[in-house]
Amino acid sequence: MALDRLLSVACGAEPADIVLAGGTVVDVLSGALRRADVAVCEGQIAGVSEEGYAGRRVIDCTGRFVAPGLIDGHIHIESSLLSPQEFAWAVAAHGTTTVVADPHEIANVCGLDGVRYMAADARGAPCEVLLTAPSCVPATHLETSGAELGPREVAEMLRWPTVVGLGEMMNFPGVVAGDPTVLGKLASAAGRPIDGHAPGLSGKDLQAYVAAEPDSDHECTTLAEAREKLAAGMWIMVREGTAAQNLAALLPLAQDPTTANRCLLVSDDLAAHELAAEGHMDRILRRAVALGLDPVTALRLVTTNPAARFRLHDRGVLRPGLLADVVVFEDLDSFQVHTVLKRGREVSDLPRRRSRARLPVGSCRLRALTEASFRVPATGGAVRAIGVVPGQIVTRALRLRLPASGGSLQADPQQDVAKLAVIERHGRGGGIGLGFVKGLGLRGGAIGSTVAHDSHNLIIAGMDDRAMLIAAQSVAEEGGGFVAVSPEGQAGIMPLPIAGLMSERRLEDVVSSQRTALEAAKSLGSPHSDPYAILSFLALPVIPELRLTDRGLVDVTRFEHMPLTGDVGDG
Amino acid sequence: MALDRLLSVACGAEPADIVLAGGTVVDVLSGALRRADVAVCEGQIAGVSEEGYAGRRVIDCTGRFVAPGLIDGHIHIESSLLSPQEFAWAVAAHGTTTVVADPHEIANVCGLDGVRYMAADARGAPCEVLLTAPSCVPATHLETSGAELGPREVAEMLRWPTVVGLGEMMNFPGVVAGDPTVLGKLASAAGRPIDGHAPGLSGKDLQAYVAAEPDSDHECTTLAEAREKLAAGMWIMVREGTAAQNLAALLPLAQDPTTANRCLLVSDDLAAHELAAEGHMDRILRRAVALGLDPVTALRLVTTNPAARFRLHDRGVLRPGLLADVVVFEDLDSFQVHTVLKRGREVSDLPRRRSRARLPVGSCRLRALTEASFRVPATGGAVRAIGVVPGQIVTRALRLRLPASGGSLQADPQQDVAKLAVIERHGRGGGIGLGFVKGLGLRGGAIGSTVAHDSHNLIIAGMDDRAMLIAAQSVAEEGGGFVAVSPEGQAGIMPLPIAGLMSERRLEDVVSSQRTALEAAKSLGSPHSDPYAILSFLALPVIPELRLTDRGLVDVTRFEHMPLTGDVGDG
Repeated sequence: MALDRLLSVACGAEPADIVLAGGTVVDVLSGALRRADVAVCEGQIAGVSEEGYAGRRVIDCTGRFVAPGLIDGHIHIESSLLSPQEFAWAVAAHGTTTVVADPHEIANVCGLDGVRYMAADARGAPCEVLLTAPSCVPATHLETSGAELGPREVAEMLRWPTVVGLGEMMNFPGVVAGDPTVLGKLASAAGRPIDGHAPGLSGKDLQAYVAAEPDSDHECTTLAEAREKLAAGMWIMVREGTAAQNLAALLPLAQDPTTANRCLLVSDDLAAHELAAEGHMDRILRRAVALGLDPVTALRLVTTNPAARFRLHDRGVLRPGLLADVVVFEDLDSFQVHTVLKRGREVSDLPRRRSRARLPVGSCRLRALTEASFRVPATGGAVRAIGVVPGQIVTRALRLRLPASGGSLQADPQQDVAKLAVIERHGRGGGIGLGFVKGLGLRGGAIGSTVAHDSHNLIIAGMDDRAMLIAAQSVAEEGGGFVAVSPEGQAGIMPLPIAGLMSERRLEDVVSSQRTALEAAKSLGSPHSDPYAILSFLALPVIPELRLTDRGLVDVTRFEHMPLTGDVGDG
Repeated sequence: MALDRLLSVACGAEPADIVLAGGTVVDVLSGALRRADVAVCEGQIAGVSEEGYAGRRVIDCTGRFVAPGLIDGHIHIESSLLSPQEFAWAVAAHGTTTVVADPHEIANVCGLDGVRYMAADARGAPCEVLLTAPSCVPATHLETSGAELGPREVAEMLRWPTVVGLGEMMNFPGVVAGDPTVLGKLASAAGRPIDGHAPGLSGKDLQAYVAAEPDSDHECTTLAEAREKLAAGMWIMVREGTAAQNLAALLPLAQDPTTANRCLLVSDDLAAHELAAEGHMDRILRRAVALGLDPVTALRLVTTNPAARFRLHDRGVLRPGLLADVVVFEDLDSFQVHTVLKRGREVSDLPRRRSRARLPVGSCRLRALTEASFRVPATGGAVRAIGVVPGQIVTRALRLRLPASGGSLQADPQQDVAKLAVIERHGRGGGIGLGFVKGLGLRGGAIGSTVAHDSHNLIIAGMDDRAMLIAAQSVAEEGGGFVAVSPEGQAGIMPLPIAGLMSERRLEDVVSSQRTALEAAKSLGSPHSDPYAILSFLALPVIPELRLTDRGLVDVTRFEHMPLTGDVGDG
């Protein structure tokens, strides 16, 4: 019996498999540091003792710090453009042994198959990928996603062993208003952890939202907002990702030892280049300590707290009998990783096996396109156009006059206006929404992306229809990706064949091909640091003011479609 | 749909069932106090808001403090001598809305039926009685209990909805030594909360104990012991009961906001007279605050912490969507209770229904006895006798010379020595262990009890065999209880017909009949405040030095039986 041996090792009667010897153990429960050996046996922690342990293998931790493996309580792996397996290997090297991922992006493309894939692809990797069941697929009724996940599908996902709860319930107006489908999904998850997402929600509406059970939030941007949500009973996930950073604003919550208890540090998103350059949770720990947070407290927020929030009772603490998920740091400032154990095995020694997980459907299924597919008939009068706001994801609703040629409206480099197309790519009718965007900075050619929140249709901005057609065809051939087409019709592509969202390549290759793709886009004139990222949000119909989906322009304030030209109500 | 209405009430769109208005809400998550109304709807908390709520019924809480219902994480209800139902009603009036009870005593008498009875009898009472599955029945192989609960029975109990985990694993030497039956029980409870009980266990043996999964302890008597156990990953249950009080010693652990997180305040045992005079968890809160603990911290230790320890995710915090288990205190010094809600209903308004739970077997099944049953043949030489140590439950192993008459050894009032008999009462053979006890102070007659840890056989101490026989027969007729028999043969009984452990009567009746029983015992000459309590521990073969079970004398140090006279080894 394995427990027999564990007890023998714990008592010191037989040698451990591995001993982490002579280090300073971080006790995330008491907040104390103490010198002790950590004995590991058959994947579990056998004992932690000042008296020392003997082991078949001894790792000298003298002068180093031994802590529980790090846990990211909220991440969208798709944001890294890495496959789940590659992501898991990359973050494990930085001490992350568990992530709770919301596979919301792939679910919008591939439905249940996509969610299954995320878990299957990461299986056997040294960072365990646990999932929350995506709760908002599709995100709105104003676009065509690749799948719909209703209460029945949510219930099914929640029966899978890797699924630990319901993913961020973004439709907070639907919750508060008692939308039956939304409540049906929440009912399917009753009694399980349910993650929230309710930026700015306050007062009695917040009470109603929490009454419906979402009891975490990672969207707080001010201390007052976080305090109100904490008082409402929510876990506060302090986000410090690539796209959004709230740690500095919310720090006081983590500095109070009582409220720290209810806080997690999470990434939410993480770009490949940032992962390569700075790491994952070690990066967040470094930032937290640099901002003045006590390092042991910071470690609590990425170990025992996320374990408690997701009811992962087998990890998060260096306790006998729990999983031997352990990270050894050189110090508690740089958080440079010396050794990582996952279930008692040294990550640096583990053989890497190729994942056999495959998605059953093609990831970019366009209907047949011609240049004419991109034609916008000139009907006279002003045209509604999306105005890019540099550095923000909100947009402006503009009205412009555009040149016409051959009876069609044209992009206009003079006004920095490109044509915009959102092409349904999930094999569900092939609708095309057409419009215009001001502020991308393109002087010619086209850029496109199959990463386009939340339905991830193919979005293309271009200065001429031919370049846009080439962009669409080239990206479809690769199964999705980022594309830049020169005015001469030369296409440069970063393929993202996994659901049109993720690469199959290694981290370093992804970083370099992403850099190449960005350079290609910038060579078309764009002054933005990441024009694909701007593009990826232009189809997101939940953030004001104006967006374009495969079904047409969306007035976000009214939450309805509107024509490209002409008057609508008082519009 | 009920959730619909809950959301409406939370938003303020329709009136709540009950509003606790104008009070100061104790936020056990943040440690803060704030003025807010608490809206209750269909048994749940709908919202907590400074903006106020309207309700069909409004309870004015101005100047009062509104807190989550209190939770006792570790109690043996049998210790109160009250039926589970009566106990639940009595403590609910003091603000306790949930207890986690270990029905270890009744399980030793009635096995699974007894455990089932505890839950069934309390059903519908305003304090929810949750159970841990007793892990050590019988406690030892040196006595005859009414039942044996092995790994299979443990697994069965853990499937019952009221059972939240495995009860205190007292056989810590068995755990550390890897005893297969003990490990089998632990394996049956894998992944569930497992309560520990390991007084004084330390070092690597403690690591081994925790590796086997028990991760709480309520037996710490010193701060150093508690700190070591907390560092080993255990929840520390700070005990403040009738029999044992550790709060003063362990207070610093509760005063540190980080370690406070891992502490609970529990009672373990509670005598009826103490419950009547001082209450339950309110009594512990009062003591904690009197010792200098911050009242909000004290409340955390009896609300959110026990809920977290037992994974009761539906309670412990005043959060929308959770059970409306609420207590309103007049202040945070006296903790005088103004109002208690259980699942949204006012406890003081609830109708009390008679429990229909019944135990299927008789609770005191003795074989036929005569005066001769109590005869101890005189074989010459010194006799081993149990020496009572006033104020402690340890005993001394004495050797005495006793008078004989008609070839039998006799009790001797001159030496303060009574005859002692432990009579198997579970219908399992009717074995009788005979011996002598020094120090009870009896001048004549006999006293007896069917409360006799841990197997709860009938134990009788007497100065003559006739009085002892009358004691046995009288108590058996009542189905168990405490008995005192005068030298003239008059028996005074406090019946405990529920398994010979508990009364069917109301709290005030139990208190007064217990007082009468004590007076009857004292009238026989005993100077002790509770001679029945002393008696109840004389059969407990796990505490040194000498005990008597139905199978004979036990040398606790050797953990084996020994004869009443003659030499044994070097003894």
